[in-house]
Amino acid sequence: MVNSGEARGDGGVSSGSEGSKDSSRCSTPSLDPERRERLREKMRRRMEAGDKWFSLEFFPPRTAEGAANLLSMFDQMATGGPLFIDVTWHPAGDPGSDKETSSMMIASTAVNYCGLETVLHMTCCQHSPEEITGHLYKAKQLGIKNILALRGDPLGGQWESEEGGFDYATDLVKHIRSDFGDYFDICVAGYPTGHPEADSFEEDLRHLKEKVSAGADFIITQLFFEADTFFHFVKACSEIGITCPILPGIFPIQSYSSLRQLVKLSKLEVPQEIKDVIEPIKDNDAAICNYGIELAVSLCQELLASGLVPGLHFYTLNRKMATTTVLKRLGMWTEDPRRPLPWAISAHPKRREEDVRPIFWASRPKSYIYRTQDWNEFPNGRWGHSSSPAFGELKNYYLFYLKSRCPRQELLKMWGEELSSEESVFEVFAHYLSGEPNQHGYKVTCLPWNDEPLAAETSLMKEQLLRVNRLGILTINSQPNVNGKPSSDPIVGWGPSGGYVFQKAYLEFFTSRETVEALLQVLKKYELRVNYHIVDVKGENITNAPELQPNAVTWGIFPGREIIQPTVVDPVSFMFWKDEAFALWIEQWGKLYDEESPSRMMIQYIHDNYFLVNLVDNEFPQDNCLWQVVEDAFELLNRPAGLSREAEAP
Amino acid sequence: MVNSGEARGDGGVSSGSEGSKDSSRCSTPSLDPERRERLREKMRRRMEAGDKWFSLEFFPPRTAEGAANLLSMFDQMATGGPLFIDVTWHPAGDPGSDKETSSMMIASTAVNYCGLETVLHMTCCQHSPEEITGHLYKAKQLGIKNILALRGDPLGGQWESEEGGFDYATDLVKHIRSDFGDYFDICVAGYPTGHPEADSFEEDLRHLKEKVSAGADFIITQLFFEADTFFHFVKACSEIGITCPILPGIFPIQSYSSLRQLVKLSKLEVPQEIKDVIEPIKDNDAAICNYGIELAVSLCQELLASGLVPGLHFYTLNRKMATTTVLKRLGMWTEDPRRPLPWAISAHPKRREEDVRPIFWASRPKSYIYRTQDWNEFPNGRWGHSSSPAFGELKNYYLFYLKSRCPRQELLKMWGEELSSEESVFEVFAHYLSGEPNQHGYKVTCLPWNDEPLAAETSLMKEQLLRVNRLGILTINSQPNVNGKPSSDPIVGWGPSGGYVFQKAYLEFFTSRETVEALLQVLKKYELRVNYHIVDVKGENITNAPELQPNAVTWGIFPGREIIQPTVVDPVSFMFWKDEAFALWIEQWGKLYDEESPSRMMIQYIHDNYFLVNLVDNEFPQDNCLWQVVEDAFELLNRPAGLSREAEAP
Repeated sequence: MVNSGEARGDGGVSSGSEGSKDSSRCSTPSLDPERRERLREKMRRRMEAGDKWFSLEFFPPRTAEGAANLLSMFDQMATGGPLFIDVTWHPAGDPGSDKETSSMMIASTAVNYCGLETVLHMTCCQHSPEEITGHLYKAKQLGIKNILALRGDPLGGQWESEEGGFDYATDLVKHIRSDFGDYFDICVAGYPTGHPEADSFEEDLRHLKEKVSAGADFIITQLFFEADTFFHFVKACSEIGITCPILPGIFPIQSYSSLRQLVKLSKLEVPQEIKDVIEPIKDNDAAICNYGIELAVSLCQELLASGLVPGLHFYTLNRKMATTTVLKRLGMWTEDPRRPLPWAISAHPKRREEDVRPIFWASRPKSYIYRTQDWNEFPNGRWGHSSSPAFGELKNYYLFYLKSRCPRQELLKMWGEELSSEESVFEVFAHYLSGEPNQHGYKVTCLPWNDEPLAAETSLMKEQLLRVNRLGILTINSQPNVNGKPSSDPIVGWGPSGGYVFQKAYLEFFTSRETVEALLQVLKKYELRVNYHIVDVKGENITNAPELQPNAVTWGIFPGREIIQPTVVDPVSFMFWKDEAFALWIEQWGKLYDEESPSRMMIQYIHDNYFLVNLVDNEFPQDNCLWQVVEDAFELLNRPAGLSREAEAP
Repeated sequence: MVNSGEARGDGGVSSGSEGSKDSSRCSTPSLDPERRERLREKMRRRMEAGDKWFSLEFFPPRTAEGAANLLSMFDQMATGGPLFIDVTWHPAGDPGSDKETSSMMIASTAVNYCGLETVLHMTCCQHSPEEITGHLYKAKQLGIKNILALRGDPLGGQWESEEGGFDYATDLVKHIRSDFGDYFDICVAGYPTGHPEADSFEEDLRHLKEKVSAGADFIITQLFFEADTFFHFVKACSEIGITCPILPGIFPIQSYSSLRQLVKLSKLEVPQEIKDVIEPIKDNDAAICNYGIELAVSLCQELLASGLVPGLHFYTLNRKMATTTVLKRLGMWTEDPRRPLPWAISAHPKRREEDVRPIFWASRPKSYIYRTQDWNEFPNGRWGHSSSPAFGELKNYYLFYLKSRCPRQELLKMWGEELSSEESVFEVFAHYLSGEPNQHGYKVTCLPWNDEPLAAETSLMKEQLLRVNRLGILTINSQPNVNGKPSSDPIVGWGPSGGYVFQKAYLEFFTSRETVEALLQVLKKYELRVNYHIVDVKGENITNAPELQPNAVTWGIFPGREIIQPTVVDPVSFMFWKDEAFALWIEQWGKLYDEESPSRMMIQYIHDNYFLVNLVDNEFPQDNCLWQVVEDAFELLNRPAGLSREAEAP
């Protein structure tokens, strides 16, 4: 919004309509009541409760790498609890396209993969009504539920009315309401000092009222430097009959250049006292940034104290530090140590009721969301209810999200320039688990199956994991058993407070045929206790689950609610996951090496010959027996008369 | 079948078709894998496993009271684990009607309310094809999945072919297959000594083969007295190419008169050695019955030892003792102490996936099934999924099932000829709980809200329940909390072995406004721990459940399965249950007394002024706090400055 000018809009009264909240009794009890609400309802509820919020504005990146970084920032900034984020519209950047850097795709990713309530900016002056309708349809399809309707800047810089096109944001608001009814929540821009192109403050205010009465739900203001500017604006809005929420746009000054550019675009005047401080330190970015933070904190405190602002809107400039520092100083950055579920929830409306997933994708939730994006219904209450287990292929997503995060050179340093033996592969897994640098001094911070560092609960089992990985049980997913820990437990807790969480111990790993044969011998002793699924890349499937039923491995009991069982081991999905898990050996690891190189052939050998195994210990109230299962298998392998290679060697 | 003669049927080979088992992956994991199978699949599976079964034949009763008794017998005999029961067709008794004594209604009740796999007999010679189609549609609608196709006896006793009608059971089998495809499993009758009307044993055998090749799935034989008769028959069937299961019909002789009547109808000859034993003791029913049991046990043992019978079919004559004694002697009466779920599962195909119910109807499952019979989908996995919470009214069912069980005089003895005070009502509840006779020497074996004696798990809380009932907390439903007891626990266990069951403590009761006011005071202290719903007959609803979500109060964790949560406290359903629970005061209790009598007015007073309260203690791992809640309320009531009547009295 910072980069978009806009004028006009007049008359009318904010509708403040109630929205189309589902009235059905049969709604799913979700862990987060806000999850079912549309943005304007969330705002109303927060305002009624006197609970002030913040929101964050981002612009689309220029490059694919920038996109990957921005998404990572979304995840980080989501932890502070923004009510929503918004993504600006870049008319020059093919904003409605499927390019990974388009406004549309960035907003879609925020909604679907990061679970963020997202407002997509949209401008009208460069697009035909048909184009705009197309964009709106696409946005709806992608799960975007909120539009910030702007006129936008004419491409040439000079304003000219187009035949049949929309001249004003008001036209866009009316168009959205006429073509999409009440589907979207609509935001419009407000100018505390009047739009630079407007004839007067009063005229601009009339245009604003027009926009609101055309169907806008709330207003975000252009940035301003003094609280009084905002107070005056709000008072004027109130006098003319604008009653919807008005969110002040806060711009923490982060550098001299960005301030100058902004001032140029917004045609705002920087107060002399600010200029006086900044000019002498204009080459010291850190000093300016600190000053910007001080200024923003004071401004926000004054705004909050007035009781006139329901929430604060931050122009982040796609940077994290300044905004989070301001929010932390204000006490508004509220990190919730508990996850709402043991996996990130998508904000797409059709995933509103989703609350069960196969555990296999626990470390790759974005892949899971991508591969299930075409589902019409999502499992709720029980995995068995899923309408279809058809998992989509990993195509563009695969290339974009998975391959762009880390440059090849860094991956080689982590995973080995040269792999001389299976044991050298085992060591990579062990270094990922231990967190210790490898022989060349590099830490292994990710594996093809794990984008993120080790989860806290996995650390509970670190010693055992280390031991078995060094012996060729290459673990890619695991959880300890949990028997009724409080939902507020910092390591294994999730969901609302006052509840209890449970887990069955789970272990998933690649291992050799020899080890699998030993495991199968050992598992006979655990027949009634441990469920296993064992497959190789060709799909040979060995299991003791007689009816291929899903096995719930994480569940929670909460006051006044039904049982939630967020993860299951689903035998059918496991066969889809298997394809993905084996492919990652080659696509992410093997392809780092030249085609005929010994390292490439080593990875190929493992890919072709190893098995993927998952084990569940159903006896969650007792000590996890899976380590014993594995130890028993090692013992069997090492017996002179056993099936192990050691025994065959001499 | 005992009472129906039949001839004809020839040629053909049993199809032994595979049936139309759902192939969908998305089936619900049910606790009982047999629940999803059709009868012929169950038979095949049992035969493959060498697991012999038994089945039970009943005839429809003459009176409504007889019907109530028969249904009670169904429940009792279901505990022994019959593979199916069958209900004979009484052409003279309007067998396809909605009368509570009709064959159709008895079979429907067995399916829907008793959860029994049921075969309905149907004869063709007295009905037009249109009538028969009508009966079959109705049977299908009611959830009946199996038909025993018979010719039936001509009404006049003399056989005469009717224009356009069906002359033979074969015609009926063909008709069922042509009009209903593979929907029904079809059974036909076999005559080990040949049908009395057939020209020869061989001719009758050809007719039987004709019936099987027309689409019958299995055969039940007419009774016989010697094992060799059956072996000879089975051998002959095999030689002519009949390969479907053949179940021997076993008739334990229970009295001289019933044997004589049977012999007359079936035109069988009783072997001389049996006559020799029976004639001298013909007036001693007990002696004949014991002899009949001995005979039947020997016959069954001989049959089972031959390896030629997959199961035994018993002609019970609607009596329990002889058949159960024989089965227990054979070791085939297998009572499973664990319930498949904490409530009886209906056998109607559309309820196949049902596994969640509101706890309110725990003691009145038949009422719940009746009131939800028009639902198209049933909650599965989660109550929130239910398609509709529209509960039907209690009409005929109400009058039939609830009012006919116990004569008015007996109820008056239990519940008091005269109720002089609220306390005299409290005492009735207390006597029901204690099991001690009341002041007039009668035990209170049921209450309007509880058809059955106290459940074992309720006994766990008997002392507390007794105390609070005497003080005017009139409990109608309760369960203790359970924190992970084995599913095999004899008192609170349910479901497959190797699992763990859990409960939140639950208490539901009627009580006065004064007590409710005290409770509400006390409950403030338990705000985060205890969920409550409090309503009076007019529907004033007081609750601390903010979003009217269902609260799971029973759940189980089993090896290799998803979580099962069979009972919930659903606030919306509670409002329907409330109507039923209040109505029972008047309909079952108040109406025992004359209209203007003080007793009637006392019940009316309670009905009009008391509240129905339910409490859930969400802290299932801790000691149940609900007794403390109630004690705190009593203490408050007894304080001099309190709200209690005692305080107001002086």
